[in-house]
Amino acid sequence: MGEFELLARIRERLPANGPRIHLGSGDDAAITVPDGATATSVDALVDGVHFRRALASPAQIGHKALAAALSDLAAMGAEPGEAYVALGVPPDLDEDGCIELLGGLLALARETGTSIAGGDVTRAAELFLALTVVGHAPGPDAFVERSGARAGDALVLTGEIGGAAAGLRLLETDCGVDPPTAQSASNQAGALRTRQLEPTPRIGAGRALAAAGATAMIDLSDGLGGDAGHLAQSSGAGLRIDAASLPLADGVAEVAAAAQREPLDIAASGGEDYELLASIAPDRLEQAESAVREAEGIALTQIGEVVAGIGVEIRLPDGRLLEPGGFDQLA
Amino acid sequence: MGEFELLARIRERLPANGPRIHLGSGDDAAITVPDGATATSVDALVDGVHFRRALASPAQIGHKALAAALSDLAAMGAEPGEAYVALGVPPDLDEDGCIELLGGLLALARETGTSIAGGDVTRAAELFLALTVVGHAPGPDAFVERSGARAGDALVLTGEIGGAAAGLRLLETDCGVDPPTAQSASNQAGALRTRQLEPTPRIGAGRALAAAGATAMIDLSDGLGGDAGHLAQSSGAGLRIDAASLPLADGVAEVAAAAQREPLDIAASGGEDYELLASIAPDRLEQAESAVREAEGIALTQIGEVVAGIGVEIRLPDGRLLEPGGFDQLA
Repeated sequence: MGEFELLARIRERLPANGPRIHLGSGDDAAITVPDGATATSVDALVDGVHFRRALASPAQIGHKALAAALSDLAAMGAEPGEAYVALGVPPDLDEDGCIELLGGLLALARETGTSIAGGDVTRAAELFLALTVVGHAPGPDAFVERSGARAGDALVLTGEIGGAAAGLRLLETDCGVDPPTAQSASNQAGALRTRQLEPTPRIGAGRALAAAGATAMIDLSDGLGGDAGHLAQSSGAGLRIDAASLPLADGVAEVAAAAQREPLDIAASGGEDYELLASIAPDRLEQAESAVREAEGIALTQIGEVVAGIGVEIRLPDGRLLEPGGFDQLA
Repeated sequence: MGEFELLARIRERLPANGPRIHLGSGDDAAITVPDGATATSVDALVDGVHFRRALASPAQIGHKALAAALSDLAAMGAEPGEAYVALGVPPDLDEDGCIELLGGLLALARETGTSIAGGDVTRAAELFLALTVVGHAPGPDAFVERSGARAGDALVLTGEIGGAAAGLRLLETDCGVDPPTAQSASNQAGALRTRQLEPTPRIGAGRALAAAGATAMIDLSDGLGGDAGHLAQSSGAGLRIDAASLPLADGVAEVAAAAQREPLDIAASGGEDYELLASIAPDRLEQAESAVREAEGIALTQIGEVVAGIGVEIRLPDGRLLEPGGFDQLA
């Protein structure tokens, strides 16, 4: 495979440039005219660490790489602008495989209004992607950082959690075998696998939360326990989470039972749900809920509150504290 | 090695944020307030393809990765702003090795006024880096694209070429053995190895050429023959190059003789010199020469001219055409 031939095939598949792009892929650099401020994030994904080629199609891998990167922009409340793709191509991924991977990536780019403005392709021993994404806002203060949570704020979560970890468990144990016969079980299992393989970055929800006045926000890539910890550390605040209020994805309970685990443990420690955790003043809660539902058709659930101190407490209905961890997840 | 521990060690080594950075590494995304327009480029480097760990120290690898990326900004005439680093760490590169690699990268960042504003670190089977760099200008038209060369323009080259390819040959044949006894030969060989291992992005020269009115510009990463071809294609122009005028780095002739190759062939086909090739109106030539010398202390040499047609002709003193290619180079 010639690098230049592949680049030419890639370029001819790129849609027209976005509104801020003065010069797209093909020169030494892309030229853009940003809005007032930009949010920029980089995500690297490696075969065997963040995805497994045995479990995911090239298109799903491309989708997931961009989704993981865009999720960071969602957590800033940014409007997605441009993405830059570095791709390491192993000997056993042919040119058509690369184009399929790019197809998955481009489909999500189209859905989210993201322009692929540049990139680099190289030979590699194993498949890797590094996605740099740039989001925009009128000014720097329009973005939501991790550091603004204050005691008294409500702690809210978009959508449902545990689905990606449950989907991974299904993928690992099914090994490609068809799901159970009952149609409902099959649909549920399929939805869980999709949560793992083709996550949705919560861009609309993130912008809605930013507009509604979220004081701090983070996306759940490592799992609720870990990511809540990052937000608590950055804000210098305590997060008290009511485990019973955690919105579990349909089917997580069944997967947990089969794995002899607690559903709440999966929900608190399973990563890659890419939902958003945010703090917001209680009197903004109602407005935020309807804005998130309108933007993305998903629920916003209050799961706890911000308190004095630094750290995270996830309290079970019986009063014990949940110690998240130990459930299998991709890094 | 814990990812978060390594990230913490990396972050504490990052210098203070640059002037455009509102929020640096450590949140979901970095927040910047760009100038009027940005130029963004991505470069991926992989062990065994763009460098070899057997031939280069971790610090040299970090330097080269950032240098290759910044060279693209130099070719736009951009002022370097921020860099984002995705790093794939193999099992046999320990935390201290990662910090040494980052040290080489940070030293060049400091020299060039580049801020490391974010990044991602992951496990990988082999060492890879993907560098995204963002450069700035007051507006999009201040950048120099590849497409503006017009018949009648002079074709100019910064510095000297062939050095990086000759240095690679020395590194491969020396295999770590000490250079010849004569001090001068040793110094010359050392300089060639440095050209290969620690290239200098021509940022000052690029900005000087942009200010002097360069009509098109590209950096020589693949080699003069190939990169001149890209510029010719983008501009829809012909480039007529006088081989005798090519400025060879000191010592290239000796390495070529030892390898039984023509020095001019090394100069035309050897990549990774990261010098700048530009077109400019002949009446701007003198001004451009002194601006490049003042900015970077290197020569600007006219090596040919832009003519009608599309393509590149490199003419030898005896009238034959040089067909570049075939000399070993890293990709």
